[in-house]
Amino acid sequence: MKLAVLASGNGSNLQAIIDGTEKGEIDARVVLVISDKKDAYALERARKHRIEACYLDPKKYAGREDYDRAVISLIKERDVGLVILAGYMRLLSPVFISAFPGRIMNIHPSLLPSFPGLEGVGQALRYGVKVSGCTVHFVDENLDTGPVILQEAVPVYDNDTEESLHQRIHDVEHRLYPKAIQLFVKGKISLEGRKCIIHER
Amino acid sequence: MKLAVLASGNGSNLQAIIDGTEKGEIDARVVLVISDKKDAYALERARKHRIEACYLDPKKYAGREDYDRAVISLIKERDVGLVILAGYMRLLSPVFISAFPGRIMNIHPSLLPSFPGLEGVGQALRYGVKVSGCTVHFVDENLDTGPVILQEAVPVYDNDTEESLHQRIHDVEHRLYPKAIQLFVKGKISLEGRKCIIHER
Repeated sequence: MKLAVLASGNGSNLQAIIDGTEKGEIDARVVLVISDKKDAYALERARKHRIEACYLDPKKYAGREDYDRAVISLIKERDVGLVILAGYMRLLSPVFISAFPGRIMNIHPSLLPSFPGLEGVGQALRYGVKVSGCTVHFVDENLDTGPVILQEAVPVYDNDTEESLHQRIHDVEHRLYPKAIQLFVKGKISLEGRKCIIHER
Repeated sequence: MKLAVLASGNGSNLQAIIDGTEKGEIDARVVLVISDKKDAYALERARKHRIEACYLDPKKYAGREDYDRAVISLIKERDVGLVILAGYMRLLSPVFISAFPGRIMNIHPSLLPSFPGLEGVGQALRYGVKVSGCTVHFVDENLDTGPVILQEAVPVYDNDTEESLHQRIHDVEHRLYPKAIQLFVKGKISLEGRKCIIHER
């Protein structure tokens, strides 16, 4: 299966996914990385692994849907089976969602439905939770509301800063996201309503 | 320290708390159990341990505040240091909250702020989370929004029923609630804004 990854930033989850494909933990390969930020380090990571890296400048498109159509056609031309969001900071338009039904995955640094949207880690610290974590989920029309594929909890300590908690969550993400992708690639995820059933053996 | 427990039902958390006091894991004693349900098994549990058990019939009071005032005076007469909600199904009025500032604790069968209110376990199953848990928190004016004292995660399995998940969460509750109460009794919880700092050593 071919994978496309959308990323706006550093791309540490992208790296974990590329590593997973190279180590054979994910039976698929990343064929395309797209970013809305020219300087996203994610693009550099892609190039280092000889993966096609595309920067699409949002300013060159009339609006969100036009931009998304450009991204869609790049992806469709390459026969991609799964679209992976890895720190992609743009909201996807309904046009994008409906172009890849059930084939868009995201990871979020909280135990959804707690703390959706921006600054999931900061929100958790400000609320004062003692447990947080991360969530891999399918993307639907709304923000961070799609069916949950995998979640894992991490403790929150009284002396945590946003940085220390984010690092603890990132460490889990780099394990959990490749695992979820491999489950998808192997056809081991099915949906009952909005509940993901995992067929592991 | 003297403890009062409000309970509407079976009172399995009440039992865990009583057991904790008798085993010396909580340096305090339950002096009063109040219920709004005549047949609450919690009352029976109290009597078995020779703890004063009071049923107050809501129908005999003009409204929520009147009822709460009766509960308040029962508690105040006994010089109680902490009011503990254990499956108490009535919403507390602001009159009640302000009578015991920072001295009312509740336990909720989810990782708040996810799934507040009724049926926390059912809500979690219907959402399709892979991790849930329970939360001990101080009670403020709003529903299940007060500062979090302790939380613990439990896994949710694909074949879980509401009953099986509830049981897994209850097992954790019976450990977590006595622990939180003992921290309070020992003066080991302080508040920074809405964040509980735990001073364990």
